[in-house]
Amino acid sequence: MIAALAALQPHLARVQAVMTAALASPEPRVQSLIDELGGFHGKMLRPSLCLLMAEATGGVEDGHLTIGAALELIHTATLVHDDLIDDADTRRGKATAHTRFGNTTAILIGDYLYTHAFHTVARLGEPRIMERLTATTNIVCRGELHQQVAERQGDLSEAEYERIVYGKTAALTELAGESGAWGRDPRFAAAGAAYGRACGIAFQIVDDCLDLAGDAQKVGKTLATDLERGRVTLPIIRALATTPASERAAAERLLLHAGDPAEVARARDYVIDRGGLRSAIATARDRVAEAKRALAPLPPSPATAHLHDLADFIVARDF
Amino acid sequence: MIAALAALQPHLARVQAVMTAALASPEPRVQSLIDELGGFHGKMLRPSLCLLMAEATGGVEDGHLTIGAALELIHTATLVHDDLIDDADTRRGKATAHTRFGNTTAILIGDYLYTHAFHTVARLGEPRIMERLTATTNIVCRGELHQQVAERQGDLSEAEYERIVYGKTAALTELAGESGAWGRDPRFAAAGAAYGRACGIAFQIVDDCLDLAGDAQKVGKTLATDLERGRVTLPIIRALATTPASERAAAERLLLHAGDPAEVARARDYVIDRGGLRSAIATARDRVAEAKRALAPLPPSPATAHLHDLADFIVARDF
Repeated sequence: MIAALAALQPHLARVQAVMTAALASPEPRVQSLIDELGGFHGKMLRPSLCLLMAEATGGVEDGHLTIGAALELIHTATLVHDDLIDDADTRRGKATAHTRFGNTTAILIGDYLYTHAFHTVARLGEPRIMERLTATTNIVCRGELHQQVAERQGDLSEAEYERIVYGKTAALTELAGESGAWGRDPRFAAAGAAYGRACGIAFQIVDDCLDLAGDAQKVGKTLATDLERGRVTLPIIRALATTPASERAAAERLLLHAGDPAEVARARDYVIDRGGLRSAIATARDRVAEAKRALAPLPPSPATAHLHDLADFIVARDF
Repeated sequence: MIAALAALQPHLARVQAVMTAALASPEPRVQSLIDELGGFHGKMLRPSLCLLMAEATGGVEDGHLTIGAALELIHTATLVHDDLIDDADTRRGKATAHTRFGNTTAILIGDYLYTHAFHTVARLGEPRIMERLTATTNIVCRGELHQQVAERQGDLSEAEYERIVYGKTAALTELAGESGAWGRDPRFAAAGAAYGRACGIAFQIVDDCLDLAGDAQKVGKTLATDLERGRVTLPIIRALATTPASERAAAERLLLHAGDPAEVARARDYVIDRGGLRSAIATARDRVAEAKRALAPLPPSPATAHLHDLADFIVARDF
């Protein structure tokens, strides 16, 4: 674990306690399932972002723990449904929810996580926070649906890809960064939002690159799901952009309609040979630099330094 | 359509407009899907309950349209996920969402409906309403999960069955009745809650009876899903209660583990022969009577009369 997150452990343990309390059920059969589910949190990146921004701008308060818990619960809800959709066996090095409990229970667990996240925040009684959280979750769900309806669409532009990525990932990290500085100097909240947004986009681009060319063992989750589903991610868009017009139709067929493992492997090699992977990673690095520049208004502090480290960590993940 | 609902049509059209506005997306590909989805509302029973209660206690205001829209969106979200779980082809006489758009899109559509419902209400800026709505949706999702983990559990008591039914159906109808009278005489809100709760339980018992012994054509949806999934509904509990101890194990095997259509048919006949269906319907009628008694504090008016009719309509549905 990087130092930036190690320093947060006491706070993160409190966030996890808020999550456990939020999910508690008076029904013994339901509580057993929740207990069995157990690891409903992962790297806790979104709460970490919120808490570091809070520390950097005046200190962590109870409200940050609630928002952090809600962000992680919503993120986990999307993962439970995504893994089912992608039929991914492994996540965070462990068997996914639908693999352990079956598809139907996984759908309901995702729903349960969503609503309990909202209720935890509703109990704060802060209409503005609730409006921001639900507006953001709308964008998340729209992004997921957008990704779905954009599968195998060869006309997907980089701008549209970025809107999908903003939806499925960066909208929530933007809120994480912003919420850490709510009620403080408005420049800090704007800095947190810009930082979180750029980090989220960088993170998702790297994730898309890892899905294409990563080592499943090191990454800890099932890979190559994007090619199998015909998702048009940045490395693929970049590879297609360097494809001569005369080869474009064949390349689209290969990259967006890869059927069996041999075709998936050929598609991956094609993207790498065309420089799509390298070019996408360069863009992720640019976004990390942008994230760090966004922190300029913050006063220097260990927490501010940790936010810089956290941004660097995004592109340093194992391939 | 019964007169109670016909009189509400102008209001219900406005609720549907709120739903359409709530679901609108700036992404063309997503908006196309939402347009195609179209009929994301059904009988509009929950908004009707809210609006009639509002009319009976002082008149319909804009807030009621928002709450009504949110209740219908949340209900529809649960149906989209339920139909996928039950692999039901037909709902409201039409092909279900997963049949039309595929399983993965149906999961995401359900999520989209949930969050957009919450956001619509969040924009009212009323913390107490948001707290009640999210607390209720927690109970709905807990009920769905509870039903799932209680499948094929021969020890399920009537009390536990009723808690499941309260969760999956009556918590939302309770809120529908209550919300129609929010901010008015507290006795009216309590009456609306009690009426909505009793109606919801009666409705679900009848639904469970229809699933067992209804005519799919008349009911407009796929039936016999409960027996196929080994769900322990009231007619089954009542049939088991009249089964002699010596036959109990065999009866549980038949009713909770029916595998093929022939076994499902035998199970249905067993429940009917044992009087389970008749006894469950009698209980639904008791609940309808209870719902009507709960209306006593309301002043006499056409809306109050329509609430009585609506309760009667629940047990008059076609078999």
